[in-house]
Amino acid sequence: MKRNLLLTTLLSASVFTATFAQETVDQAMVQKIREEGLNHSQVMKTAFYLTDVSGPRLSGSPGLKHAQDWAVSQLKTWGLANAGLESWGKFGKGWEVEKNYAAITVPYYHAIIAVPKAWTPSTAGPIKGDVVLIKADTITDLDQYKGKLKGKIVITDTKTALVRSTKPDLSRYTDEELEKMAAAQPAAAGDRRGGPQNSPAFAAMRKLRALRTAMSEFFVQEEVGLVLSQARGTDGTVFTTNGASYAEDAKPVAPELETSGEDYLRIVRLLNGGINVQMEADVQTKFFTNDLNGYDVIAEIPGTDKKLKDQLVIIGGHFDSWHGGTGATDNAAGSAVMMEAMRILKAVNFKPKRTIRIALWSSEEQGLYGSRGYVANHFGDPKTMALKPEQAKVSAYYNLDNGTGKIRGVYLQGNQAVAPIFKSWLEPFKDLGASTLTISNTGGTDHLSFDAVGIPGFQFIQEPMDYNTRTHHSNQDTYDRLSEDDLKQAATIVASFVYNTSQRPDMMPRKELPKPPPAPAN
Amino acid sequence: MKRNLLLTTLLSASVFTATFAQETVDQAMVQKIREEGLNHSQVMKTAFYLTDVSGPRLSGSPGLKHAQDWAVSQLKTWGLANAGLESWGKFGKGWEVEKNYAAITVPYYHAIIAVPKAWTPSTAGPIKGDVVLIKADTITDLDQYKGKLKGKIVITDTKTALVRSTKPDLSRYTDEELEKMAAAQPAAAGDRRGGPQNSPAFAAMRKLRALRTAMSEFFVQEEVGLVLSQARGTDGTVFTTNGASYAEDAKPVAPELETSGEDYLRIVRLLNGGINVQMEADVQTKFFTNDLNGYDVIAEIPGTDKKLKDQLVIIGGHFDSWHGGTGATDNAAGSAVMMEAMRILKAVNFKPKRTIRIALWSSEEQGLYGSRGYVANHFGDPKTMALKPEQAKVSAYYNLDNGTGKIRGVYLQGNQAVAPIFKSWLEPFKDLGASTLTISNTGGTDHLSFDAVGIPGFQFIQEPMDYNTRTHHSNQDTYDRLSEDDLKQAATIVASFVYNTSQRPDMMPRKELPKPPPAPAN
Repeated sequence: MKRNLLLTTLLSASVFTATFAQETVDQAMVQKIREEGLNHSQVMKTAFYLTDVSGPRLSGSPGLKHAQDWAVSQLKTWGLANAGLESWGKFGKGWEVEKNYAAITVPYYHAIIAVPKAWTPSTAGPIKGDVVLIKADTITDLDQYKGKLKGKIVITDTKTALVRSTKPDLSRYTDEELEKMAAAQPAAAGDRRGGPQNSPAFAAMRKLRALRTAMSEFFVQEEVGLVLSQARGTDGTVFTTNGASYAEDAKPVAPELETSGEDYLRIVRLLNGGINVQMEADVQTKFFTNDLNGYDVIAEIPGTDKKLKDQLVIIGGHFDSWHGGTGATDNAAGSAVMMEAMRILKAVNFKPKRTIRIALWSSEEQGLYGSRGYVANHFGDPKTMALKPEQAKVSAYYNLDNGTGKIRGVYLQGNQAVAPIFKSWLEPFKDLGASTLTISNTGGTDHLSFDAVGIPGFQFIQEPMDYNTRTHHSNQDTYDRLSEDDLKQAATIVASFVYNTSQRPDMMPRKELPKPPPAPAN
Repeated sequence: MKRNLLLTTLLSASVFTATFAQETVDQAMVQKIREEGLNHSQVMKTAFYLTDVSGPRLSGSPGLKHAQDWAVSQLKTWGLANAGLESWGKFGKGWEVEKNYAAITVPYYHAIIAVPKAWTPSTAGPIKGDVVLIKADTITDLDQYKGKLKGKIVITDTKTALVRSTKPDLSRYTDEELEKMAAAQPAAAGDRRGGPQNSPAFAAMRKLRALRTAMSEFFVQEEVGLVLSQARGTDGTVFTTNGASYAEDAKPVAPELETSGEDYLRIVRLLNGGINVQMEADVQTKFFTNDLNGYDVIAEIPGTDKKLKDQLVIIGGHFDSWHGGTGATDNAAGSAVMMEAMRILKAVNFKPKRTIRIALWSSEEQGLYGSRGYVANHFGDPKTMALKPEQAKVSAYYNLDNGTGKIRGVYLQGNQAVAPIFKSWLEPFKDLGASTLTISNTGGTDHLSFDAVGIPGFQFIQEPMDYNTRTHHSNQDTYDRLSEDDLKQAATIVASFVYNTSQRPDMMPRKELPKPPPAPAN
C-alpha cells in the first residue's frame, strides 16, 4: 500500500484518489475515452458489417468466415497488431440454408413461417404430400406407422398452446432489481442447478429424450419427406434450437423445419379435427467439410512497459450466432462493442503498459468451444488443473454476451477482492447508469472458461431489453434490435476498464485456484 | 308506464324489478342463458370452422364463400329459419394467393416474411434479379429509372425504423379507464376528425399520395418484376393494407409484397451501404370474376307474438377478413359470438315475441358495404333519408367487431334514452365485468349503417386485448389469439340483450332522425 500512496502524491492533481482504497483512476483519460466512445462511435457500422452484410454467423458457416475475415481486416485497419484467425481445435461440419420454402396447400394455400433446423439435410427436391399427425407416447406406438411415412410430412401434437405475456417485450432493470442484485449473498459451495438426478421429473425427461431419439431414427428409416417441429415463440418470432449434430460422423437425420407456433398449431388443430392437410416444401441445405477446424479472431495492442508488457488484459465475446436472424444481439452486439473498445483505445493513442488482446470466439453456441479451446491451448486444463506459464500472466478477462443492453455493473463471480477496484472504475460512469456490483456468478458464456483455470473472468451486467422475450436465438435477432446509445455506453466503459487493468501497478486479485474435479468412478 | 307496472305485478316473484325504471329483467331466463353460454358453449368450435378450416375470408374469395356456406348450414342445423345468402349489391373481383415465396439470395440466402398485397397480380413466374433502391421525392425524379427496371425488384427508403413498444402487447381496461369512458361528454355537433383540409399536413399527404400513384403507374409501364413495400409491424408480424382495387375495371398494378419490417429494412440498409442485393421470388395470385356480387349470411328465429312478430331485433358483425392470417379476432370472433348467441337462444327453447335476425356482413373491410347495402335494400337511403316501411320496425341492431375481448359495456352512440334500459340489462353480468355505459359514439364498423338511417345501432365495449398491437389486419390474426372465456361471456350477454329487446313491450327509444347531408355545391 505504501508504494501506491507515494505514487498518488507524485501524480498530478487531476487524478482522482478513492478515499478508501489505493485504486486511482485517470480522469483525463476517462474523459478522452468518453469523448471518443460517446461522440465518435463506429459501433453501429461494425455491427452492420457483422449482421446485415455477413448474414448469420453459424459455427463453421461461410457467413461466419466472411465476418471473421472482415473483422481481422478491420482490426488491422485500426492499427492493431498480430491480427488473424487462430484455430482453437476441431469443430466439425459447416452448414447453411440455400432454400427455405414451405406452405400449406390443402385445405387452402398458406405459406408458413419456419426455419430449417441447424445441420439438417435437404428435402428430396421440391416435395408435396399429406401431413401425418404422429401419435406416439412410447416407442412401440411408432409401429403402426411402419411403411406409411415415405415422402410424407410429419407432425406431433405438442399440446403447447400459445400464451400471450402480460409484460412488455422490452425492459430495463429497475433500481429495486439492481439493489437486490447488489445485496445478493455468495452462492453456497455445492449448490447445484436443477433437481436431483433420480427425481420423477428427471426420469420423465430421460424417457422423453429416448422417445425423441427413437422417433428421429424411425423417421430416417421410414424415409419421411420432412419433419415439422414447433418452435418456441409467437407473432412470427421463431426461436431455433441447438440443431442436429455437426460432427464429422454424425448420424443421419430427417429434414426438419422449426415452425412458428401459429402455423404449427393450425396444422395440428386441423388434423385433430379430422381435416386433411397437404403441404408443399423445398428445403435445400449445404454441409461444408473442407475445413473442420474452429477459429477465433485475435488481435492486440502490444504492451510497452518493460516489466509489464508480457502480462495480458483480454477482452472478448463470442462471434458465432444462430441462423434464423443475423445474431445481432447474440452476439454481434458484444463483438461490436469489444471491437469498438479496441478502436477507442487506438483512437485516443493509448500506449498500454500491459498487452491488450481481443478474442472473438467461435462455437460458443455449441458449448463455449472457442474460448475453452483457446484457454486449453494457452493457459491450462480445467480437467486436471495442469497450468501453463501464461496462466500467471493474464490479469483479467472481460466478456460481453448478454445482448444489446448497456452496462449496469459487473458480476464479481465470487471474487470479493475486486469489488472496491471495480467500484472506483465505475464511479465516472454513474451518470450513464453503471454502478452495480454483485458477488453473484453468472453463467452460460465465455468468461467461465477463464474462471475455470483461475484467471479472473467477468461478464458485465447488461439491461435485459428484449433478449429473452424476442431476440435470443430467434429469427428476430436482427440489426433493428440494436440500441446505439446502449452499445456506445458499453464500449466506453469496457475501454475504460481495459485502460485501468492495463495501467494499474498490480495484476487483478485472484480467487483461490479451483480444485480439479474428482476422477469419475469406474 | 302504467301498463308495465301492471305487468310487473302480474309476473312471478322471481322477476327482478329495477327500482328506478320500468325495465324488467327475467332472471330465470338470464340464468338459463348463462348456463348454456358459459357451460355448454360451442363458440370455439364455430371459430375453428371460420378460421382454421375456411382460411382467410377476403371479400369475394373462395375462403369467404366456404365459410359463408358453412355458416348457413350450421345455422340451419341449429334450427334457425330462412337461412341463406342474400346479395347486398355488386362488389367486384375475388382474389386469393396461390403461391407466396421470396428470398434474398445475394449477399447470402435469407427467406423473407411477406404477404402479397391484396388484389395484386402474379410475378411473371419465378423471377430472379437485382433489387433497385428507388430514390424519388418528386415525380420527375422517376425519369432516371426509365428503361432500367424491367424484371427488377424495387424498393424505396421509407426511413421508418422499427421501434419496440415499452407497453405489453396484451391489455384489458383498468377501472380508471372505464370510469373515464362512462364520464365522457357527448360529442359536440359539428366535431370533425382530422385537421382542416387546407392545412400543410394535408397538402403534404396529397402530394405523397400523388407521388405514390405516379410511381405505381410508372412501375407497371416499366414492367417491374416485383414491388416491395414495408408493412407495419415487428417480430414477424405483418399488418397488411387495404390492397389494390378489386373493381371490375381496376387499373393494372405491379405485383407487390407487403414485407416484414425487419426484412425490408435489411435490404434498404444493404443498398444504402452500397452492397448489391439480389432476390428470387415466385408470387402467384388468382382473380375471380364469375360472380361479382357480395353476399350477407342471414338467418332468423321468427317472432311469435301476433302484434310484435313483424318487428325485428337484428344482431351481426362482419364476416369478411383480411388475408395475412385467418381473421380470427377481426372478425371471426364477433361472427362466432353472434352465431353462438343465436344457438344459445335456440338451445334454451326461446320463442321470441319479435323476430330475431342474424346478419353476417361481407365487405365491411372495404367500406361497410355488406351492411350498407343491406340497409339500403331494406330500410332506407342515408344520402336522401328516404326511408322504407321496415325502417320503423327494427327495434335495435347489435354489433360485435372489436376483437376477442369480452364485453365491458356498450357505446350508447349518443342515445341517452337507452342508458337506463341497458343498465338494467347489464346488471346480472356485473360479476363478469360488464357494466360500463358511455354516451360516446364509436366508429369504423357496421352499426353505423343502421345509425345512419335512424335505427338504434350499438357496438359493445370490448377489452382491447392485443387487437391494435398484434392482430388487427395482420398475419398474426389466428385462432391462437382467441380467448375462449371472453367469447363465452360475450355470447351470453348478447343473447341476453336479444332476449330483452325481443320481449320488452316497446321498441327501443330512438334518437332524432339524422338530417340528409346538404347537396354538394356544384
